[in-house]
Amino acid sequence: MQVIRTISEMQEISMEYKIKGNKIALVPTMGFLHLGHLSLIKKAKELSDIVVTTIFVNPKQFAPHEDFDSYPRDFSKDSELAQDAGTDILFIPDILTIYPKDFTSFYTVGKLAKIFDGEFRPDFFDGVAMVCIKLFNITSPDITVFGQKDYQQSRVIKKIINELNFNIQLHIQPTIREANGLAMSSRNVYLSPTEKEKSSILFIAMEEAKREIQKGEKRRKIINAIMHKTLRTVPEIKIDYAAAALSDNFETPEEFLPGDNVVLLLATYLGKTRLIDNSLITIPSELHKHFK
Amino acid sequence: MQVIRTISEMQEISMEYKIKGNKIALVPTMGFLHLGHLSLIKKAKELSDIVVTTIFVNPKQFAPHEDFDSYPRDFSKDSELAQDAGTDILFIPDILTIYPKDFTSFYTVGKLAKIFDGEFRPDFFDGVAMVCIKLFNITSPDITVFGQKDYQQSRVIKKIINELNFNIQLHIQPTIREANGLAMSSRNVYLSPTEKEKSSILFIAMEEAKREIQKGEKRRKIINAIMHKTLRTVPEIKIDYAAAALSDNFETPEEFLPGDNVVLLLATYLGKTRLIDNSLITIPSELHKHFK
Repeated sequence: MQVIRTISEMQEISMEYKIKGNKIALVPTMGFLHLGHLSLIKKAKELSDIVVTTIFVNPKQFAPHEDFDSYPRDFSKDSELAQDAGTDILFIPDILTIYPKDFTSFYTVGKLAKIFDGEFRPDFFDGVAMVCIKLFNITSPDITVFGQKDYQQSRVIKKIINELNFNIQLHIQPTIREANGLAMSSRNVYLSPTEKEKSSILFIAMEEAKREIQKGEKRRKIINAIMHKTLRTVPEIKIDYAAAALSDNFETPEEFLPGDNVVLLLATYLGKTRLIDNSLITIPSELHKHFK
Repeated sequence: MQVIRTISEMQEISMEYKIKGNKIALVPTMGFLHLGHLSLIKKAKELSDIVVTTIFVNPKQFAPHEDFDSYPRDFSKDSELAQDAGTDILFIPDILTIYPKDFTSFYTVGKLAKIFDGEFRPDFFDGVAMVCIKLFNITSPDITVFGQKDYQQSRVIKKIINELNFNIQLHIQPTIREANGLAMSSRNVYLSPTEKEKSSILFIAMEEAKREIQKGEKRRKIINAIMHKTLRTVPEIKIDYAAAALSDNFETPEEFLPGDNVVLLLATYLGKTRLIDNSLITIPSELHKHFK
């Protein structure tokens, strides 16, 4: 595994591989790698010849009151894990390499960045977008692999790729979970043992909602209420949102239709730790009910 | 010369050329080609293996009150001229190909897009930026050639390339002028014969200022006043701005220093036609004066 720290070197290497006909896959991360990241890297290796994993804790996607400074970092362990999972090139630029002092560019994908998580973290997706645009141009990938855990982020990336005409295929890997259902996240290290135990309530809330949907529930507000009610059984949980939406465009009809692809989106605080999760479900057809 | 209208086809062709080791040069235009454009295409041919010329009248760089609808267009003549000048691929997408109905992305390079011409055309450079980002991703050029005529635009493009890490070299070609000094522009067709005659005042104003600078003038406001005074000798001229600035960063010190690279920037209306022009000069060293 090669470790690269400068943009020019990274671009040169990517170009060399491309000209040789190699397919490059990019896995952008903020480091502190867990099994979720490793599944992205493994998938990237399956889908390409050369896997570029990047580690960059991106200041632009943190608000001033958020945890940029304390975000967990462990380069030597990350380096080992990234290599074992199949990384060919580890790109780890420093902050001034990515954002020089006189940096003034701003990009937003628009509305999609301002709803759901964007309501609570108004600059988050714009910050994610900027670093991804830069990483796309620096690594010239044919394919990029993101996790479903950050579902809205994956839709934002999809829209950036489409609207700015990046010639890049997006692959989304399923969420990897702890035994109790908690979605893997670098921020899980913030949870106390008691909190970790209680964190299973997010998964349980989505499972509850899915059960009701399977039984025929299509009313969005009822589905949302089921998730809220379940989450509220843990008093330490503070809900940012717990909502169903069409998975493709995040629209929120009063009632879903059979065949609709729906995403259940959760964002909560458990103590001081913000946890997000999501789950996809297709609204069952009416026939299903009749045949039961 | 190949004529391409779809993004996917253009991306495929570019990738094929790149993998074969060909160097691609991009010349983005809004068509209605004149000698200025042709010099860009010829230079592009000199600097590369494959010249991609694009013709796209970009709605995002026109304000609602501006001349998008009436902007001059002549595809069959453009096609002939582009080919004769050395274009290998002519990319002419339609508006919905570039901006689908649900397009919501926005990019700005920041302050540089809001000063000088950006003060008078607040959305102009953001619109230019968006289409260039898209064209860069669609054509994957190694080099792109722009005209010095749109000096501030060329600096905006430079900053986009740097800040978004496009692996593209920017080449700026000198302005091509009519016999009377008028900078070539597709919009010159709007000028009546009398106006065309009077349009030489822009070039004269810059030459006047340069003469005074050569004689030792370094005070920015005096330099600006010389250009204003000269322009005002033509009563049909309405001045948006006529100003000297450091050519690199558009800063405006009270007094320039020997060795400073300065740009003289003009934007005026002549009747209903907006004309812009610029000229570069290095502030002479003090020694120069002593030795005279």
